[in-house]
Amino acid sequence: MSADLDDLTVSLDRAHVFHSWSAQGALAPLSIAGGKGCQVWDHSGRQYLDFSSQLVNTNIGHLHPKVVEAIQEQAALLPTIAPSTANLARGEAAKRIVERSPDGFGKVFFTNGGADAIENAIRMARLHTGRDKVLSTYRSYHGNTGAAVVATGDWRRLPNEFARGHVHFFGPYLYRSEFWATTPEEECARALHHLRRVIEAEGPSSIAAVLLETIPGTAGVLVPPPGYLPGVRALCDEFGILLVLDEVMAGFGRTGEWLALDAFNVDGAVVPDLITFAKGVNSGYVPVGGVIISDPVAATFDERVFPGGLTYSGHPLAAASIVATLDAMESEGIVANAKRIGQDVLGPGLRALAAKHDVIGEVRGTGVFWALELVSDRDDRTPLAAADMGRLKASLLDRGLLPFVQDNRVHVVPPCIVTDDEVDQALAIYDEALAAL
Amino acid sequence: MSADLDDLTVSLDRAHVFHSWSAQGALAPLSIAGGKGCQVWDHSGRQYLDFSSQLVNTNIGHLHPKVVEAIQEQAALLPTIAPSTANLARGEAAKRIVERSPDGFGKVFFTNGGADAIENAIRMARLHTGRDKVLSTYRSYHGNTGAAVVATGDWRRLPNEFARGHVHFFGPYLYRSEFWATTPEEECARALHHLRRVIEAEGPSSIAAVLLETIPGTAGVLVPPPGYLPGVRALCDEFGILLVLDEVMAGFGRTGEWLALDAFNVDGAVVPDLITFAKGVNSGYVPVGGVIISDPVAATFDERVFPGGLTYSGHPLAAASIVATLDAMESEGIVANAKRIGQDVLGPGLRALAAKHDVIGEVRGTGVFWALELVSDRDDRTPLAAADMGRLKASLLDRGLLPFVQDNRVHVVPPCIVTDDEVDQALAIYDEALAAL
Repeated sequence: MSADLDDLTVSLDRAHVFHSWSAQGALAPLSIAGGKGCQVWDHSGRQYLDFSSQLVNTNIGHLHPKVVEAIQEQAALLPTIAPSTANLARGEAAKRIVERSPDGFGKVFFTNGGADAIENAIRMARLHTGRDKVLSTYRSYHGNTGAAVVATGDWRRLPNEFARGHVHFFGPYLYRSEFWATTPEEECARALHHLRRVIEAEGPSSIAAVLLETIPGTAGVLVPPPGYLPGVRALCDEFGILLVLDEVMAGFGRTGEWLALDAFNVDGAVVPDLITFAKGVNSGYVPVGGVIISDPVAATFDERVFPGGLTYSGHPLAAASIVATLDAMESEGIVANAKRIGQDVLGPGLRALAAKHDVIGEVRGTGVFWALELVSDRDDRTPLAAADMGRLKASLLDRGLLPFVQDNRVHVVPPCIVTDDEVDQALAIYDEALAAL
Repeated sequence: MSADLDDLTVSLDRAHVFHSWSAQGALAPLSIAGGKGCQVWDHSGRQYLDFSSQLVNTNIGHLHPKVVEAIQEQAALLPTIAPSTANLARGEAAKRIVERSPDGFGKVFFTNGGADAIENAIRMARLHTGRDKVLSTYRSYHGNTGAAVVATGDWRRLPNEFARGHVHFFGPYLYRSEFWATTPEEECARALHHLRRVIEAEGPSSIAAVLLETIPGTAGVLVPPPGYLPGVRALCDEFGILLVLDEVMAGFGRTGEWLALDAFNVDGAVVPDLITFAKGVNSGYVPVGGVIISDPVAATFDERVFPGGLTYSGHPLAAASIVATLDAMESEGIVANAKRIGQDVLGPGLRALAAKHDVIGEVRGTGVFWALELVSDRDDRTPLAAADMGRLKASLLDRGLLPFVQDNRVHVVPPCIVTDDEVDQALAIYDEALAAL
């Protein structure tokens, strides 16, 4: 009976569901029926330890009881209402988000996800500055809609270049430096020099914004050297350019901070002008995203009509789930847990794996946001072949771990609630699978 | 105490919530605490008869018990899962959607709303045809993201023209004909001639798609003459262009049909290649939208990677709400009710108002999708001034009716479940407010 439900699930999927970022012909999707905490399972009862957090969004884990309850209560009260009205859940959600943002951020524009958050942040930056161009890095992903996918730097941009006004540059990534650097300090200084040269050559007065993931995520958990983001902020100030930090993946607990920028914002050195969010803000229990707006940018639209909007902006069901998520993360110390796990358990554990397995070229990360960069040759840093990555992924699944595999990397990205025991189980599975490779 | 809650709601909103399509400074949003059926209310107990369906999305009314229950059950089972998996609620939702689509539509790509449905339909059309341009009408709205807002024809496009490959043309609208026509037949023939000339002049081999709202909604409920959509389909066939019908507002019950195109699809004369949806498919209880894909377009991506996707594609909570909504609409005869109301009660009632009030220049619509076009001079068809429209809106609200007012029009768009009594109440309120004008 239960195995029948898995068969039904997969057959309905293959007949009627068109999948993201895939050729549809050869897909063999895993049936998932339920989940709790760091576990998910199919209808037959086969369990997986979720070290992907799905698409790095279930920061609070699966089926957190307080968030489930909040969704159920709001569903019974008022699931949806137009954005032109005022709604208590929406106001409470916005209040909690600005309370976790830097000083000087008073307002939130709610969207349905990360992509349309980026669209609206770009819109605000262009209208606030009166300039067109948006600078973003080649190693980045910002969403799949018109401007967001062209701001994206990776291959997903290439079939989609129908938006104008986008320029790409290289960010810091010492392991595969674009700047012939050999130390973090040199990589940082040269990456900032490169950005300055791109700004100068594009013409500062044509540039509305520099858009950066605070820590580029899908591109490889590329933690920037400490001086980089302060340096970008200073360049933006010098040339009157807005700084937009994309915290869709890195924000709301993932890095062991409320916002990933907090770790870099020493003495107010990294205060952006706009912040985009989605995923962790409510772990994706209800689709939602948004833009946190600094007061000067918000003031631009006090008298002037903001030309953007959407039917489900500030959706009450999403708002209620945000309130419950942020309150639970606070009261249960979930962000602090992510920080401790990263420092004391997961980081050291992954470094121990690297000491043992030559295939691990580099370990990078913070909090519950880590990447293992796999190479077939440590000296040449040759990325591990796709076929080997495929075998590794299958091997991890066989051993009961749901992995996040991207290019030649395994991203180790469990929920922020992960326990020491669960990390130990996962490390043992990674160890076995790497040994079997 | 309850009035205090309204004060708190509005004060949190004014402090922290950034609103769609507005100058933020002078907003005075209505506090809405709850709703049921065609009614909404604030915390103080003040009730409104909702003849807006919010943004024309709550087709099933507020707080339908079966949809609420489905959301509560799925929330307790698995609110979110990555789109790469197979999930039973997602498959069941896709199955129900294709069952209500024309023959030859087998797959659904789920998005978060209408805008990203349009983005992905445009993406599919471009990649399927290998052509760039998308033709859409000046009197249209297709969403607020990169390509969707430039496909849009109305003023909302103007500050947002950062996407390339869009061309606009004029659709049929006899009351304000662009073609000097005096009969529906003449308007239809001349509008088709105009579209043919635009296609020829742009170059047919450069055009990927013609994108049309089946019945343009926000632009004024512009029901096309019977021959127009078959004529557009024939033009598309002649030139190898895809036809994308945007059913975001018109679909899933609004017109008294499952899809608005059904009324025009006599003997298979209007089968599009792609259909976009959102709103009515689950009344917006959970943010969702999508693209219904014809088999030839879907087959294009069997071997070739589809370069689009999103974290919440096929979100289980949204999927469960779609299943419950479509099942309830079916078992409770909700689509048939919308049709009957339009034919027997609302349409005749609005025409009776027009006979009584000279300010009504034209009554247009079908099902529960109607517009009153208001004019200060019936002969010159001069649009009623914005200040008068503002006074009318306030007057309707004062009388306990939540209206949908756009430009010089009142859109009469109650939920599909509206009763004869509720229509009578609303007609009496419109009558009073128009008399007071």
